[in-house]
Amino acid sequence: MTDETAACRRAAALRAMVEEVIVETLPALDDPRASTTGVSRLVEAMRYSLTAPGKRLRPTLLLAAAEACGGRPRDFVRFAVGLEMIHAYSLVHDDLPAMDDDDLRRGRPTNHVVFGEAMAILAGDALLTEAFALMLEPVADPARQMEIVAEVCRAAGWRGMVGGQAADLMAEGRDPAEDTLRSIHERKTGALLAVSVRAGARLAGAGDEQVEVLDRFSEHFGLAFQIADDIKDETAPTEVSGKTGGGDREAGKMTYPALYGVERSRELLEQELDLASAALADFGERAAVLEELARSSVAPALEPRSERV
Amino acid sequence: MTDETAACRRAAALRAMVEEVIVETLPALDDPRASTTGVSRLVEAMRYSLTAPGKRLRPTLLLAAAEACGGRPRDFVRFAVGLEMIHAYSLVHDDLPAMDDDDLRRGRPTNHVVFGEAMAILAGDALLTEAFALMLEPVADPARQMEIVAEVCRAAGWRGMVGGQAADLMAEGRDPAEDTLRSIHERKTGALLAVSVRAGARLAGAGDEQVEVLDRFSEHFGLAFQIADDIKDETAPTEVSGKTGGGDREAGKMTYPALYGVERSRELLEQELDLASAALADFGERAAVLEELARSSVAPALEPRSERV
Repeated sequence: MTDETAACRRAAALRAMVEEVIVETLPALDDPRASTTGVSRLVEAMRYSLTAPGKRLRPTLLLAAAEACGGRPRDFVRFAVGLEMIHAYSLVHDDLPAMDDDDLRRGRPTNHVVFGEAMAILAGDALLTEAFALMLEPVADPARQMEIVAEVCRAAGWRGMVGGQAADLMAEGRDPAEDTLRSIHERKTGALLAVSVRAGARLAGAGDEQVEVLDRFSEHFGLAFQIADDIKDETAPTEVSGKTGGGDREAGKMTYPALYGVERSRELLEQELDLASAALADFGERAAVLEELARSSVAPALEPRSERV
Repeated sequence: MTDETAACRRAAALRAMVEEVIVETLPALDDPRASTTGVSRLVEAMRYSLTAPGKRLRPTLLLAAAEACGGRPRDFVRFAVGLEMIHAYSLVHDDLPAMDDDDLRRGRPTNHVVFGEAMAILAGDALLTEAFALMLEPVADPARQMEIVAEVCRAAGWRGMVGGQAADLMAEGRDPAEDTLRSIHERKTGALLAVSVRAGARLAGAGDEQVEVLDRFSEHFGLAFQIADDIKDETAPTEVSGKTGGGDREAGKMTYPALYGVERSRELLEQELDLASAALADFGERAAVLEELARSSVAPALEPRSERV
């Protein structure tokens, strides 16, 4: 077995831990706590989006970073699922008619199509709130854990993800400039990916130096991830609904391919991926799973497919 | 000066502390952190709803409970403002076209009317996230504070406020039954009021016995509060927009006046208020401000006005 195979298998094992908790974390519908009709419907809507097929990238990154810093991933799985809840809520709200107005996500009807718009708004709100409930279960030194969850707030709120979505909204229809594009992406996608890695490291007790190294990794990986997402949307076949398919890039939004074309975007992507790997040099073999997660999550964008362009 | 006057003035002083932090807590628009256009618009939308005139009941209850248990209110004002942010976000999302579709709140255009639906959704999301950032600033023993914030999650999420909103949504148009009505209200309004009181007590270091006493107070006060809200909406003049005015009760929704009529609802309200006061007996004078907050917040519903019924 090569080292790469070992890293790939370990990544899959960490992801499986996440899936296990995702399936059991929201109560089944016959749970007496959810017996009031409206509440069980709400929890069903939350489950619908949380359990939707996905890469579980953010929680798996957290576990891999924890392990790279000497922690036991098993201890942090519920905390990690909190990050997946934040990701899931952001997708539910992004898909709403007032936002990207998507009927399908990965070929599955979006939350508001199944549960109605009002319930989808509430399901998103409840997923975000429940995320914090999970992240506040004691798993580390309490003062440190409070700081970590506060960092997640900054990455997820107006300074980070939600701020990026707002900037994206306001930039729509304007001429894309690279600075703007990059700053939107850093907030919208990069901040939550980066805090996933940081949280894993700090929960495991990593010191400032290790965290700084991982921050450099995240900076480059986050950018690579967003370029890959843009390329995927540009080259993916249009879905039956007539909406753009795999992601939330609508015509007229700023993307790397719109700015540089697909081929140049792929070069930029490879460049960022190499910088991400290089940042991890000091970790040696301990960072193999993080590197594997980075490479595999952008791989589809590196293979040319039938292109519309 | 009577004791009641003293309590009234202290309540006003606590509320003023809250207002001070509310005004300064979100960065002004020239803050460099908000320089990206979309982000400053988002923060403006957050400020618009957070600074909207309001009773600041939840944060003031927190400070009053902390003081009743021997704590210094000044230490907990930012934490308390976190609760006001949760309240503010819930109103922004409640008013959305897909929810109650209200154009006016207290005579002011609602968030989505001013900023658009997409930005209003994001402003609500960002207020909820920022609430946790404030509540996670260290102000008490960290392990205890984590527990308290986790309690706020339970009160605000699917087990509490959002669950109540979902139940309310599903109950619309059905025949109101008292059990259902009461359980919806307990979740939708009561849970966040009760956790405000509990959080204040526990941040100040209160023991289980004191917290239990305060829980009894909150149980009765929460019910009184919701009955008062229902009465106010029933008897308030309709606003120019043609929507119901002061609150979110639409025709066909379950309310106490719909179930019992206005007069009997007022009797029930006074009954619950007396039970709330009685619960505080052991606290003596130290609970005077809590009692004052309870009485004054439901007072408008006790005075008969020009009625439509």
